[in-house]
Amino acid sequence: MLKVVVCVSGGGTNLQAVLDAIDDGRITNAQVTAVVSNNAGAMALERAKKHGIPAIVLSPRDYPDRSSFNGAFTRKMLELNPDLIVLAGFLVKVPAETVAAFDNRIVNIHPSLIPSFCGVGCYGLKVHEKALERGVKITGATVHFVNEGMDEGPVIAQKAVEVRQDDTPETLQRRVMEQAEWVLLPQVIDDIANNRIFVENGKVRKEEKEKI
Amino acid sequence: MLKVVVCVSGGGTNLQAVLDAIDDGRITNAQVTAVVSNNAGAMALERAKKHGIPAIVLSPRDYPDRSSFNGAFTRKMLELNPDLIVLAGFLVKVPAETVAAFDNRIVNIHPSLIPSFCGVGCYGLKVHEKALERGVKITGATVHFVNEGMDEGPVIAQKAVEVRQDDTPETLQRRVMEQAEWVLLPQVIDDIANNRIFVENGKVRKEEKEKI
Repeated sequence: MLKVVVCVSGGGTNLQAVLDAIDDGRITNAQVTAVVSNNAGAMALERAKKHGIPAIVLSPRDYPDRSSFNGAFTRKMLELNPDLIVLAGFLVKVPAETVAAFDNRIVNIHPSLIPSFCGVGCYGLKVHEKALERGVKITGATVHFVNEGMDEGPVIAQKAVEVRQDDTPETLQRRVMEQAEWVLLPQVIDDIANNRIFVENGKVRKEEKEKI
Repeated sequence: MLKVVVCVSGGGTNLQAVLDAIDDGRITNAQVTAVVSNNAGAMALERAKKHGIPAIVLSPRDYPDRSSFNGAFTRKMLELNPDLIVLAGFLVKVPAETVAAFDNRIVNIHPSLIPSFCGVGCYGLKVHEKALERGVKITGATVHFVNEGMDEGPVIAQKAVEVRQDDTPETLQRRVMEQAEWVLLPQVIDDIANNRIFVENGKVRKEEKEKI
């Protein structure tokens, strides 16, 4: 049984998509053992509690400097000892020491088709603002392993979404969530939980589900 | 009737897709009035001749320096006087003076989802090599207006294509052609020929076909 810790900052709709997929059997052999938020007011914490999942607040604001936060975050992750850390709209940069401790065991979901519209300063609604500014007709979402770079780890899965002419950043964000993020993230967790994802030479190989 | 000049460097499969679409009525109100190649051996020139279309060779190699080629290229385009110039695998940078003379009347097809895998040095098979190196799961093609930048003009249309695990640059290139380039380019030419494409504030707006 894959033990998953989900890190969030806000509404937690991706967390909800994962919990729903576990409940209805689209994700097998995995359970969410804790939810960590940097934001004490995150709706995601309520979603966790409703599911009887420990909800933990860990914010850089509660530490004198970044390095002490980084140490606390890494220690908390080692204590929780998950098989997989899922960054589901987590707006804090994961400390390098956490990345080193959980090599190829941290995944992030990014609301664009990497390498488009990613990197430093490109998160949340800003990603969609940039896509609309550039006038692209196709965008989407990416689930990738987290390495020491920003949105630079091996790509696990991507899904394309059409941009509409009347889209605002808000409507585009919503559609990318519905059509891509909430589909991809449960799929990837199910694939990892059932040993279908391998990293070889910095690239992801996926073994197809066995046909029954 | 939209007069189209197609510029090519190689096989001319995109040219063929356009000629086929004119022949079978997927493109209306447009005709290819000349094909220009920088490469005298381009198969595309044969395709043009078979269709009774003037086939013109214009190569930087035949001029003492780039500026005299640029002048000759621009004069040739002004003489041909097309309503639209289509760069269909044209590996020569279009001179700035041509771009200025044909503002929003030059389109290029690029074998990726811009802004991924585009810009200086990213053309032909190299685009697909870069996509495979990065390990993306979705790529595609883009038709865009040409401005003074490299692959930076307004995006007209894009189409996504799935990357397969066993893809080589060659197999991926072929599938992006078949599934995206040969579909997009005729669509865009038909849209332009029938006045459905408008550029506003650097972005493309498309009017939908009227329902009959």
